[in-house]
Amino acid sequence: MERQTVRLGIIGAGNVGAALVAMLLDESRFPALLEAVGAPLSISAIAVRDASKVRPGIPAKLLTTDPLALATRDDVDIVVELAGGVDDAYRYVHAALSAGKSVVTANKALIAAKGTELEALARLQNVDLIFEAAVGGGIPILRALRTSLVGEKIHRVMGIVNGTTNFILSAMASDGADYGDVLAEAQRLGYAEADPTADVEGFDAAAKVTILSALSFGTSLEGAAIARQGISAITADDVAFAKRHHYVIKLVGVAERVGEFGISMRVHPAMLPEAHPLASINGAFNAVFVEGAKAGPLMMMGQGAGGNPTASAVLGDILEAGRNRLLGRRSATPDVETNLHMIPQGELQSSFYLTLDVLDRPGVLAAVTSVFGDHGVSIRLMEQSGMGDEARLTLVTHLALESDMTATLEDLQTVDTVDAIGACIRIVGEDLA
Amino acid sequence: MERQTVRLGIIGAGNVGAALVAMLLDESRFPALLEAVGAPLSISAIAVRDASKVRPGIPAKLLTTDPLALATRDDVDIVVELAGGVDDAYRYVHAALSAGKSVVTANKALIAAKGTELEALARLQNVDLIFEAAVGGGIPILRALRTSLVGEKIHRVMGIVNGTTNFILSAMASDGADYGDVLAEAQRLGYAEADPTADVEGFDAAAKVTILSALSFGTSLEGAAIARQGISAITADDVAFAKRHHYVIKLVGVAERVGEFGISMRVHPAMLPEAHPLASINGAFNAVFVEGAKAGPLMMMGQGAGGNPTASAVLGDILEAGRNRLLGRRSATPDVETNLHMIPQGELQSSFYLTLDVLDRPGVLAAVTSVFGDHGVSIRLMEQSGMGDEARLTLVTHLALESDMTATLEDLQTVDTVDAIGACIRIVGEDLA
Repeated sequence: MERQTVRLGIIGAGNVGAALVAMLLDESRFPALLEAVGAPLSISAIAVRDASKVRPGIPAKLLTTDPLALATRDDVDIVVELAGGVDDAYRYVHAALSAGKSVVTANKALIAAKGTELEALARLQNVDLIFEAAVGGGIPILRALRTSLVGEKIHRVMGIVNGTTNFILSAMASDGADYGDVLAEAQRLGYAEADPTADVEGFDAAAKVTILSALSFGTSLEGAAIARQGISAITADDVAFAKRHHYVIKLVGVAERVGEFGISMRVHPAMLPEAHPLASINGAFNAVFVEGAKAGPLMMMGQGAGGNPTASAVLGDILEAGRNRLLGRRSATPDVETNLHMIPQGELQSSFYLTLDVLDRPGVLAAVTSVFGDHGVSIRLMEQSGMGDEARLTLVTHLALESDMTATLEDLQTVDTVDAIGACIRIVGEDLA
Repeated sequence: MERQTVRLGIIGAGNVGAALVAMLLDESRFPALLEAVGAPLSISAIAVRDASKVRPGIPAKLLTTDPLALATRDDVDIVVELAGGVDDAYRYVHAALSAGKSVVTANKALIAAKGTELEALARLQNVDLIFEAAVGGGIPILRALRTSLVGEKIHRVMGIVNGTTNFILSAMASDGADYGDVLAEAQRLGYAEADPTADVEGFDAAAKVTILSALSFGTSLEGAAIARQGISAITADDVAFAKRHHYVIKLVGVAERVGEFGISMRVHPAMLPEAHPLASINGAFNAVFVEGAKAGPLMMMGQGAGGNPTASAVLGDILEAGRNRLLGRRSATPDVETNLHMIPQGELQSSFYLTLDVLDRPGVLAAVTSVFGDHGVSIRLMEQSGMGDEARLTLVTHLALESDMTATLEDLQTVDTVDAIGACIRIVGEDLA
């Protein structure tokens, strides 16, 4: 009997694509891949922008510059979308699924914006749409959520899912350096983009939270509005305060069940107790912390980006999709739960850390604390440093409603003796440290 | 069309069995389980030793005292083996697989001793044998190895896979207490058995290393001889030294590729740098650290034992086996690689920490260090404490062959001025901290 082959069409040959092709062409791994799929894998074509560019390790005869044609070719069973972006990638993936191809993608932006629609199309076509690498690079967190934990009632998923911001915050913590200096260094080293907005303002993390929430709770993948606060306002003083009080500042993405049918999704900097498992995740590492009703707390960490780790995750997806194709089946994917509602950020409770630059005049403390009191926000710690016009108040509140804290911040802006309001950072995870 | 049901037979209703039954009978979870399997789950029977015992939450009409009959009943599709032990469990699982049932088990001892034979039988019968809970309780590490990472060339798997010893070592580190006192406390709290041998001497961890190695490298599951050293010789002084030098002592289980076809499996206490991800895994938590060629370092942590976490992992396996049965397929399992060989422990290299109680007489240092020199073991650090007959030498070596270190220890026993030799602890993971 002739053995079937599972044929791949790959769109994109950047870092990840090149690493993937190298893994697929490594003969020493052929037996393992054959065993995992049940048939050999082959590459039918690789779509690139510029076919004339020399690409070491990539056979030139496989190159094409027409990704849309590749997505529907007869000799392609699985389309691997590594092009990035939303609009073009959407066209390729939609075309591939419509033509009955299975699709593997690492594209978090695409899945966070169009995942529900594309998933419905994949279901209709009885093919797979798998996207492990879209969250946490090489960390197999999404597969854990859709297999091992699919029977588990999950309370909360909290992750460090952006390597750039974690690199910056880790460097600020270890060097005592200021945000701007570390960002410049990260840009020089290639860890941050020339325009770092997507990373440092939390957009990248928000897309990943959308995906984590969909797999944890069944929320939809169609561009959820996520409360989002970045790290650009964080100062060396904030980091120093955190260290003195045994906290670590991390940018966290959170998706959380509130009551039975409420869901909160948000991205913000957080002070985590040093003993919290996420507090020790440093540099470009990513980690996702899952709290299940029965499984208890789980954490998975690994390299959140990079050609090889991402390609490793993509390869795992290809093996799953390939095996499924041979067996004429697809992997189970969760339905969208229609009875969930989003909880407004203001209805959540947290402790807050806050700094205020104030004029050190008689009555300034009374003026500041009365604003907190007016909104029912109770202060659990206050430190004053500096003298005269340079004085700074550092405050930590007890648990307070976010809406009350927001109102407090608004009123503080009208207090004459308050010069400037620094980063307002939530203190989280104290129950788990 | 009438909907099929996937029918379970459960052997054992202790902590894990009771937690599992509660999860299966929780009506609020029915939709999620139905969606994951494609059909409802039902329990046909539960085998227990004593059917007259009152078991809250477990319907008495489901109880039977004949596990072997349960394993082959017509109205059972999946047998869930939670009885423990090897011989009886082997009979039940063998009978179930022979009768064409899929089997889910949490029994590490059974899998580590008989897994290869039972796996071959399952393959022959085209049914599943799945055992996620056998390693790391609720941590989905085995599924990650056999799905996401199946295409990955793995270099090393290192885990904290025994909660009892991790509880003891964590308490010794935080309290400065001695081994015996902490063990007694652990026994009082129910974290350690009256006879703690299986845990503290590393037998339990060794079974788990056998399983991790099988899924990482394709070694066989038939009672591998694993180099094994427990924690009972570790003293408060060792822990204090570790802390002073920014190490943490953990009992680690390691399965490692040596060259292309060599495999080393071992269980021993290790000094890990404080910055190593495994160093922060405390109390009864478990964690497994995986180093893949492409995925890079990954770590998964969670609750390594307990009724609910273990039942959560068992439920994940039931959902996988149930879905497979409806589709008439089984999950892929790795072949046993026949070209692998075990690397003798003596051929490995490590740095070692060692304490010697010596008589503080002229020439004692020369006598001790010349023994190290005779075997080519070079000393990188030496501390002397105490005076007269109470003196203690603490030594750390450079990288040395284990066989040379073993020979050094043997010769040290013949040195007159050496009174006693303390725990010899490997220093590992310094490349990754």
